[in-house]
Amino acid sequence: MNMQAPRGTQDLLPGTTESWQYVERKLNDICHRFNYKEIRTPIFEHTELFQRGVGDTTDIVQREMYTFKDRGDRNLTLRPEGTASVVRAFVQNKLFGLPNQPTKVFYFGPMFRYERPQQGRMRQFVQFGVEALGSADPAIDAEVISLAMSCYQELGLRSLKLVINSLGDTESRENHRKALINHFEPHKDELCSDCQVRLDKNPLRILDCKKDRDHPAMQSAPSILDYLNEDSGQYFNKVRHYLDEMGINYIVDKNLVRGLDYYNHTAFEIMSDAEGFGAITTLSGGGRYNGLVEDLGGPETPGIGFALSVERLLMALEAEGINLPTEDVVDCYIIALGEESVTEAVRLTYKLRKAGLQVDKDYQDKKFKAQFKTADRLNTKYVIVLGENELEKNVVNVKDMHSGEQQEVGINELENYLLNELQGGK
Amino acid sequence: MNMQAPRGTQDLLPGTTESWQYVERKLNDICHRFNYKEIRTPIFEHTELFQRGVGDTTDIVQREMYTFKDRGDRNLTLRPEGTASVVRAFVQNKLFGLPNQPTKVFYFGPMFRYERPQQGRMRQFVQFGVEALGSADPAIDAEVISLAMSCYQELGLRSLKLVINSLGDTESRENHRKALINHFEPHKDELCSDCQVRLDKNPLRILDCKKDRDHPAMQSAPSILDYLNEDSGQYFNKVRHYLDEMGINYIVDKNLVRGLDYYNHTAFEIMSDAEGFGAITTLSGGGRYNGLVEDLGGPETPGIGFALSVERLLMALEAEGINLPTEDVVDCYIIALGEESVTEAVRLTYKLRKAGLQVDKDYQDKKFKAQFKTADRLNTKYVIVLGENELEKNVVNVKDMHSGEQQEVGINELENYLLNELQGGK
Repeated sequence: MNMQAPRGTQDLLPGTTESWQYVERKLNDICHRFNYKEIRTPIFEHTELFQRGVGDTTDIVQREMYTFKDRGDRNLTLRPEGTASVVRAFVQNKLFGLPNQPTKVFYFGPMFRYERPQQGRMRQFVQFGVEALGSADPAIDAEVISLAMSCYQELGLRSLKLVINSLGDTESRENHRKALINHFEPHKDELCSDCQVRLDKNPLRILDCKKDRDHPAMQSAPSILDYLNEDSGQYFNKVRHYLDEMGINYIVDKNLVRGLDYYNHTAFEIMSDAEGFGAITTLSGGGRYNGLVEDLGGPETPGIGFALSVERLLMALEAEGINLPTEDVVDCYIIALGEESVTEAVRLTYKLRKAGLQVDKDYQDKKFKAQFKTADRLNTKYVIVLGENELEKNVVNVKDMHSGEQQEVGINELENYLLNELQGGK
Repeated sequence: MNMQAPRGTQDLLPGTTESWQYVERKLNDICHRFNYKEIRTPIFEHTELFQRGVGDTTDIVQREMYTFKDRGDRNLTLRPEGTASVVRAFVQNKLFGLPNQPTKVFYFGPMFRYERPQQGRMRQFVQFGVEALGSADPAIDAEVISLAMSCYQELGLRSLKLVINSLGDTESRENHRKALINHFEPHKDELCSDCQVRLDKNPLRILDCKKDRDHPAMQSAPSILDYLNEDSGQYFNKVRHYLDEMGINYIVDKNLVRGLDYYNHTAFEIMSDAEGFGAITTLSGGGRYNGLVEDLGGPETPGIGFALSVERLLMALEAEGINLPTEDVVDCYIIALGEESVTEAVRLTYKLRKAGLQVDKDYQDKKFKAQFKTADRLNTKYVIVLGENELEKNVVNVKDMHSGEQQEVGINELENYLLNELQGGK
């Protein structure tokens, strides 16, 4: 019997989930301020969505998808990324027809890629991302980049590197494509088998190849930046100008091409510079994808977005030694002795919880001392003792665990007493 | 090209996700007060976990699972429910060895069952649930039930029906099982084919059959409550006593058996009584499952939990006409006219967002009037106008959309001005 979580997946346990919740709340808050609204799409989609929306020549589609048939013989795939699904939802639900455009959304959830598991690369991982559909304004490219940077900066990260590039419009890309083919054609036999296919299908992706990275022809490959036409050049300059005005530092890297087929114009990545962060330094990436909405059956609509891995974000926080301010305390713990006191404790526990307090009690029939020890381990602020003597007098004994002071309080006054004490800034 | 979400799944769009977020925050807060911590398990598990942990004779395992092979030939299944995964994580991560017991956890996330989609029953649906592992105290049964009821009550639902039953311990169940076989054996040929199988394998589930529900032998079937031994009877009485003390109303239904194989002792369901709620009135269910942890390879550990469908919770809110207090406003919208003003607006937007304000601007090169209309549709509190004249004087024009008042504010003072105004209780 295999009773382990499947390879490449993990359990997030109490003690860890608190950090995830904190990060989620922070990212939610940032999206709120930037006026991006949440969208939730299904965990699986028809396989052809990703074949079309991510690209047939990508590693993801060729090798990494969890694809299966359901009981109705549908060909389904667990989503490997978020953009294709969001664009599908945008088209299917006709969001392009709503009065407020661009449509600015964010998503948060598990993605699935069948890769060799390693640190920072799981088969099930969590992505947070945003998409802005319906604007071809370079100011929104800058907005998306500034939102991405804010996600890291507002959690306290400092060792960040923002890298940007432009892939140009269709004309620029076509001219660059021809130049790349001319450049690599004489070296075709020296390239890996994947790159030999890419040379015909999508030569830009040769620049992204890990195997051929050290081939001498890579260094001298023609740069897209030399092939941008006037419009594309101006567009890129405006994005840079806005980033400058916002005070956001960046490096232009002409070899940044991104792994997915659908990008044009602005492309960017954020990396961690932190020492000891590990082999994979990329924290997130994004870019513009004008044309994707039409490819997926919608009206002509420009788009831009980015996605970040929450696992890598948490790794970066660890690498920089940043502790998130998650709390692990209990307002009060009720210790009861004797059957009637236990019943009263059950009632009181429920009453105080309904009043807004965080309360716990024993459920293992432990002795007084052991219960007190549990209360202590839970970082309890107030321990409430209710024995037979107390019950007879209709009181409880309240111990302030911070000061050590003890006090008798009437059972009926306990709720107000604790609410007052806890609001008093303990 | 099939560009629709797969059958039985749905997109949650802006305007809807706000309600989900509100419900999630509320359920999170309740778990916090009851001292349950979040656990997150993978979306898929080894298939045998559910065969073993949910039960081979259940509809879920026989007919409804999304099962597939991954590229490494593993037999995987998208989780159809949460308990088996949580127990697997409890065992694998040895949570039973931690000092504070019982282990009290909650989870939140998508589940998958291949059923005929209908209102309130999707193939991908979201469950929230809690599990308490390590206590055989009837007080924790009452705690779990009180937590479940709080989830609905604190969101404002009133038309609720809590139904409880006891399935007894192993001895009681065995005696009842024999009585059921004796009772149904003479009618075997009149029962549906599923029930004929159940008669051998798990006769208790005959009571749960939708097809044979009206068979006369159902009414006269022996009740588990008549077969509870002394311990089981006392246990059930204590659970009821605690619920009484908490002031929680319930109905005892001797036919409540629940669809999963692993329950014993306490079983419960919460239904909606609201008019027009629909055919499926069950909102959530749960119960005790002593023995499941051992079945999944762990040490002897009692357990109890429940799960609720978030979709049905939202349906119940709608049926009772309850509007969740979700906000849809923007603090300020910046309207800029002219290239230099737009650049300044980009800078200001980012600056105000960093200061904690919710800010937006135009990204579609709209005229002044159209931008103003957008600001109005977004329920903007303050519209900020920045034209060439203003830029020259280093000021902006701030319009309070509530009072209609307008005011010139220096660009460098804008942040403090808005923070003051917004904290003033608008």
